[in-house]
Amino acid sequence: MRRIMLIIAYQGTNYCGWQKQIGQKTVEGTINKALSDLFAKEIEVIGASRTDTGVHAKGNVAIFDTDNMSIPAEKIAYALNVRLPLDIRVQSSKEVREDFHPRYDKNRKNYTYKILNKAIEMPIYREYTYHVHSDIDISLMRIASKYLIGEHDFKAFCSANTEVKSTVRTIYDISIDRDEEDIISISIEGNGFLYNMVRIIVGTLLQVGTGKISVDQVKMILDSKNRDNAGPTAPAKGLILDRILY
Amino acid sequence: MRRIMLIIAYQGTNYCGWQKQIGQKTVEGTINKALSDLFAKEIEVIGASRTDTGVHAKGNVAIFDTDNMSIPAEKIAYALNVRLPLDIRVQSSKEVREDFHPRYDKNRKNYTYKILNKAIEMPIYREYTYHVHSDIDISLMRIASKYLIGEHDFKAFCSANTEVKSTVRTIYDISIDRDEEDIISISIEGNGFLYNMVRIIVGTLLQVGTGKISVDQVKMILDSKNRDNAGPTAPAKGLILDRILY
Repeated sequence: MRRIMLIIAYQGTNYCGWQKQIGQKTVEGTINKALSDLFAKEIEVIGASRTDTGVHAKGNVAIFDTDNMSIPAEKIAYALNVRLPLDIRVQSSKEVREDFHPRYDKNRKNYTYKILNKAIEMPIYREYTYHVHSDIDISLMRIASKYLIGEHDFKAFCSANTEVKSTVRTIYDISIDRDEEDIISISIEGNGFLYNMVRIIVGTLLQVGTGKISVDQVKMILDSKNRDNAGPTAPAKGLILDRILY
Repeated sequence: MRRIMLIIAYQGTNYCGWQKQIGQKTVEGTINKALSDLFAKEIEVIGASRTDTGVHAKGNVAIFDTDNMSIPAEKIAYALNVRLPLDIRVQSSKEVREDFHPRYDKNRKNYTYKILNKAIEMPIYREYTYHVHSDIDISLMRIASKYLIGEHDFKAFCSANTEVKSTVRTIYDISIDRDEEDIISISIEGNGFLYNMVRIIVGTLLQVGTGKISVDQVKMILDSKNRDNAGPTAPAKGLILDRILY
């Protein structure tokens, strides 16, 4: 028996998210089908991150077990890509220890949220940037983001309808930059994220950047532990799961 | 009568190029329809660059004439965007002098060609990058590109089936850079380009970068004035018309 780790990139536009659902096109379901085809046996992956409908990934992680020894672990990525649609590409495959678990093993996740901040949308970027035409002051967003660094109870930045034991998470870093094409990239690294946490953080920082709330209000929102005080959930299409480090 | 200049961005993926053709979905045809709708009168634009099927633009230019004075010139872009599909966005509109012509007025054009140079494709970039998995040495491409700077007869870098009086053009600059995601951007500025010229230049420089031909062969190809000696035409989807400066 071998446990194989896949690093998977996809454009989420045409998928009902990662998690398999009967009668829906999902990334997980599509990968299960390609794997089952390849090994001529029903195979189901365990994914690291159940990204939402419309969210993209450059490096989600999944594992599966196989007793097939004929395909070298590193070649599985290529064999799978032949069986996958163009909006999903397995970036690499390798053997990992038999008890490795993509969710329970300690990890750091990196997400990037992309905002196109100009008067009029740029078509070639429209499927993975959120278009905001009002002026955004990223220097204010940078100051406000400092309140979120470290270990905190992020209950205010979590969709109300999740059931998790603890809403305490650690954010290691938030960087915010604007490129020459007016794409603002907000990169967040943490040890785990609550449901919609990155998108609610972005929605809140955007309220700071557009002058709707003050920098200090972010601290008050965090302390309130109340989702109603935070900003709106930013749209899925701007969010990219960059990588998961174990 | 006013002459209005439009700066137009589009993702070319789903269009049979710029130029209107009966029974085909084209960028020009789609804009003519939106303009005719807006002004309740048949209007046809004159475009600066007839980009090919699948080629993208951030700033193609077109003009049209109207005796309607009710919409301020700068607002026409917004009124048009309401009537256009999401893969075409008019970036701006302004009044220009009545004899301004987007092709005959002296101009400089900037194109960028994007190559994703890594083992496996990245889905979110796949519609506007050309995926090349072999190693590319951009330092060789940079040296080779110097032979093309200046005024030359670019007959070798022009599709054989074009009818133009002169194949002499001037290239002001070629810059080649690789970003941290292994996207190589080749930016070319010139006073005009022959049919497929940018894509044939890219195809030839790629042969240099992948070691198929030597740096000096680019000079020999240029001097030969024979299309058969140059490299293949690089795929349309990697090409973006950035801007046209008058």
